Amino acid sequence: MQTKSPDTAILLLSCLDTQGIVSDVSHFIFTYGGNILDSNQHSDVQTHTFFMRVEWELSKFKIPQEKIAQAFEPIALKFGMNFKIQFSNTLTRLAIFVSQYDHCLYDLILRNREGETHAEICLIIGNHPQMKEIADSFGLPFHYTPMTKETKDEVENQQIALLKEHQIDLVVLARYMQILSPRFIEEFPNTIINIHHSFLPAFIGAKPYHQAYARGVKIIGATSHYVTQELDQGPIIEQDVTRISHRDSVRTLVIKGRNLEKIVLSKAVKLHLEHRVLPHGNKTVVFE
Amino acid sequence: MQTKSPDTAILLLSCLDTQGIVSDVSHFIFTYGGNILDSNQHSDVQTHTFFMRVEWELSKFKIPQEKIAQAFEPIALKFGMNFKIQFSNTLTRLAIFVSQYDHCLYDLILRNREGETHAEICLIIGNHPQMKEIADSFGLPFHYTPMTKETKDEVENQQIALLKEHQIDLVVLARYMQILSPRFIEEFPNTIINIHHSFLPAFIGAKPYHQAYARGVKIIGATSHYVTQELDQGPIIEQDVTRISHRDSVRTLVIKGRNLEKIVLSKAVKLHLEHRVLPHGNKTVVFE
Amino acid sequence: MQTKSPDTAILLLSCLDTQGIVSDVSHFIFTYGGNILDSNQHSDVQTHTFFMRVEWELSKFKIPQEKIAQAFEPIALKFGMNFKIQFSNTLTRLAIFVSQYDHCLYDLILRNREGETHAEICLIIGNHPQMKEIADSFGLPFHYTPMTKETKDEVENQQIALLKEHQIDLVVLARYMQILSPRFIEEFPNTIINIHHSFLPAFIGAKPYHQAYARGVKIIGATSHYVTQELDQGPIIEQDVTRISHRDSVRTLVIKGRNLEKIVLSKAVKLHLEHRVLPHGNKTVVFE
Amino acid sequence: MQTKSPDTAILLLSCLDTQGIVSDVSHFIFTYGGNILDSNQHSDVQTHTFFMRVEWELSKFKIPQEKIAQAFEPIALKFGMNFKIQFSNTLTRLAIFVSQYDHCLYDLILRNREGETHAEICLIIGNHPQMKEIADSFGLPFHYTPMTKETKDEVENQQIALLKEHQIDLVVLARYMQILSPRFIEEFPNTIINIHHSFLPAFIGAKPYHQAYARGVKIIGATSHYVTQELDQGPIIEQDVTRISHRDSVRTLVIKGRNLEKIVLSKAVKLHLEHRVLPHGNKTVVFE
Repeated sequence: MQTKSPDTAILLLSCLDTQGIVSDVSHFIFTYGGNILDSNQHSDVQTHTFFMRVEWELSKFKIPQEKIAQAFEPIALKFGMNFKIQFSNTLTRLAIFVSQYDHCLYDLILRNREGETHAEICLIIGNHPQMKEIADSFGLPFHYTPMTKETKDEVENQQIALLKEHQIDLVVLARYMQILSPRFIEEFPNTIINIHHSFLPAFIGAKPYHQAYARGVKIIGATSHYVTQELDQGPIIEQDVTRISHRDSVRTLVIKGRNLEKIVLSKAVKLHLEHRVLPHGNKTVVFE
Repeated sequence: MQTKSPDTAILLLSCLDTQGIVSDVSHFIFTYGGNILDSNQHSDVQTHTFFMRVEWELSKFKIPQEKIAQAFEPIALKFGMNFKIQFSNTLTRLAIFVSQYDHCLYDLILRNREGETHAEICLIIGNHPQMKEIADSFGLPFHYTPMTKETKDEVENQQIALLKEHQIDLVVLARYMQILSPRFIEEFPNTIINIHHSFLPAFIGAKPYHQAYARGVKIIGATSHYVTQELDQGPIIEQDVTRISHRDSVRTLVIKGRNLEKIVLSKAVKLHLEHRVLPHGNKTVVFE
Repeated sequence: MQTKSPDTAILLLSCLDTQGIVSDVSHFIFTYGGNILDSNQHSDVQTHTFFMRVEWELSKFKIPQEKIAQAFEPIALKFGMNFKIQFSNTLTRLAIFVSQYDHCLYDLILRNREGETHAEICLIIGNHPQMKEIADSFGLPFHYTPMTKETKDEVENQQIALLKEHQIDLVVLARYMQILSPRFIEEFPNTIINIHHSFLPAFIGAKPYHQAYARGVKIIGATSHYVTQELDQGPIIEQDVTRISHRDSVRTLVIKGRNLEKIVLSKAVKLHLEHRVLPHGNKTVVFE
Repeated sequence: MQTKSPDTAILLLSCLDTQGIVSDVSHFIFTYGGNILDSNQHSDVQTHTFFMRVEWELSKFKIPQEKIAQAFEPIALKFGMNFKIQFSNTLTRLAIFVSQYDHCLYDLILRNREGETHAEICLIIGNHPQMKEIADSFGLPFHYTPMTKETKDEVENQQIALLKEHQIDLVVLARYMQILSPRFIEEFPNTIINIHHSFLPAFIGAKPYHQAYARGVKIIGATSHYVTQELDQGPIIEQDVTRISHRDSVRTLVIKGRNLEKIVLSKAVKLHLEHRVLPHGNKTVVFE
């Protein structure tokens, strides 16, 4: 949980597991006057991969922010690391995609307004015009991008152009009822978060509440994941469930599910914005 | 939740939904001096089926216990009901099937000893000899029925004979690692309860914890259901889940899952023993 | 859960427990052509009190809506019942009181807009002017009623007058940071619902998140209850909890708690609006 | 979660928060050939205290096990650390205190047998003779120590002598219905774990299920904590809750509560045995 006041750097890294990584990383931070606020690590025993997240205060750090990545390069090279350094004083630039359901949209906007998520909502993109009113009421820009089978390619090009123009860091599909093309997904690897209204891998695809009703389960769920080429198969970031009973109709499942969808999507987005999620193949390491 | 002291009758019924059912049933009970302690009903709007569970005190009831079903026949005929009348002073006769994992077996025995479940454990049947010691320590009869592909038919015949001889009302598969033959299942419709160590319909079949680990889910579950011909497809009685993380290995999933398996199986058995479960096609109505 | 289409009557009653109540009530409904959709009962063994909720379709009911209560009187007299008959086609008239926190206000408005709650929000009353903007954006009337120790009596008189003028059925305190006077509470018995941001009876009174932080609990909660003369002591309608850890500061408890407050308050309001809650001394019977 | 095979060292430390701690600790481990498997840290901002848990493989570590603490002393001195080094190949020596309820006792024994907890149950001490049978059935030593007001001092002396003689590391009060004297508690600081059958700080003291029933809460809980001089006020290690309703009697609360008590106590004991708990004043830091 980032604290409000001090500027911090957050380093996320992964590499082949070996000795000396923590020692070198913490020595690097100490040498230049950084005070470690939080540090987490994980070793995946199957793939021998090491993951780390470390956050330190920048107030007395002797390397200027824009040169830290460069200064860290030698250590990264030594261990063959993938790494990324981010800063608490830099807001993540967010685009929200939405169709006709507004509950996740409202939830994301309101949490952002209350300071719960560390992001700037730069774009709301929708294929139904009535979302404009909501965007307007919060002073947020809305782009109406209706789509047919015939225009899908062209409209996606517009959307991609919009995302690039606004230097979007994270795309959130807030119950966006369109399947993104492989081409679109490739442009934004591990930076598109979707909410699926079932406890994946149960009830993949369309109408999961109808599927859950038909199967007679006693619990329903929601799953937030990064979007990959395979439908509903991307790395899971967060899931949650709620109890149901024979009294529930599909309609009441939808109502109970809305609660879950909001909570699970917002939690996943928040974890991503706090740089706590490391995708790893089809799974995630989440440093809470 | 049955109270300890007063003898009660529990009527479970289902029929086509129409007017006057509750009125006739409650009038029947009132006329003969019964005091209704608990009553639940449900209408399935898709199939127009009406379900009811009603429990009443027998102390002043004017019809002797063994003749109540017969006295109720006219109402059942009028509405075309399926019904069953059971009595709190009659213990359900239980058989527990087990393989090499003992946690569910212990859990069922201990809850029964503490008076949590209203049943007599008449038989423990196992295909691994080491469970005998546990059965012995509680003074319960153990039958060792090892099985190979070649002997399966014959051994199942022995098992069925045992169940019939001991007038077993409910069979509980407490992590019994054999698939019952269709013939076996047919003999005991909706009276075999199984525990599957996943959140069905996710991870059907073998090694669900391995499947969950491979998929990278953030929550695992357990499901208790009546056994039907299709593997892991029977009517679900109870499910529960627990949160996991990237830190969990298959081994720790197994440990966390054991907790769930015990709780979910015992809950389902308890609901069945209190005559709260009405199967309905591939689903259940559970009057908690 | 009320279904959308058919008009229904909902009868809530309590009386001394005796034989024949269910029989008489269901006979009454059947006689006049009502089809029972849902029925629940409960007997409190300590006080020998019987509680019932029964809901039936009105489409073919032979008594006009406005005369049903009168027609039921003889049965009520016979058993000495407290009873109330309400109708699904009559919207409950709601007033929401709010201070400077807007999350519960938004949550109540949005759920109402989505048809999740069966009510008309007639008034929003607040002692902080900035809530007007939110009310305006949804076209809801806002009344600004600032209050000092000196003006409390007078302002409460205005508020009570407003509630009466608008024939308010239910008052919801959506994180309203004022303690209502005994006089105010007396005017609206069991029709004021409050949300307290702790797991009552733990952490009564001011700053419960600070109290929770100081005590080092591992779980925090929220409680929704009817307001009575004793602070935070009224009949509890709904509670829920969420897990926390040593990593949480008071600030993150507040954020996690907001989620709970919204869910618990909305759930309690929904239960009340569906006429599922029967207060009983300092407790409630909730027929879910 | 410790893995089964490799021998590891676990270092728990706390000190005033300052720069360079992680760097020095990880450098120490690296220098002597240790491979860090898991590392966690926490800074308490109110008291400026730093907490750390680090676990590393011993297979190639150049310092023999019994000399590691000594070798670490200079770093501990530099930062003014409280620290403790423990080893996965050393079983914690456990004593379980029990009265007439056996569910927690069974649960602790069975989980230990299944390898879920890393401990040796050396003593079972009880003030009711019937627990002997359970202890016997698992081949565990039982000491019967009945107690009256008059003999309390003397009996406690015997108990303390037993604990010392058997070099007990951890005392678990498994629903032990006696209040330990201050003198007893002083002998075993932060090494006595109790289970209280409520969601503390709600319902402190005797008969919490009766208190919960009287208050009409919708959720009950259980709390495991280190025993300190003030009753039910010690540092909380773990809590959990379960949902109840108006249908529950005190008797069914007791049954539902037993489930919680077992789970919460075993979880707390497991966390302690894996050296994941650092008491801090009246709170705990738990590195899960």
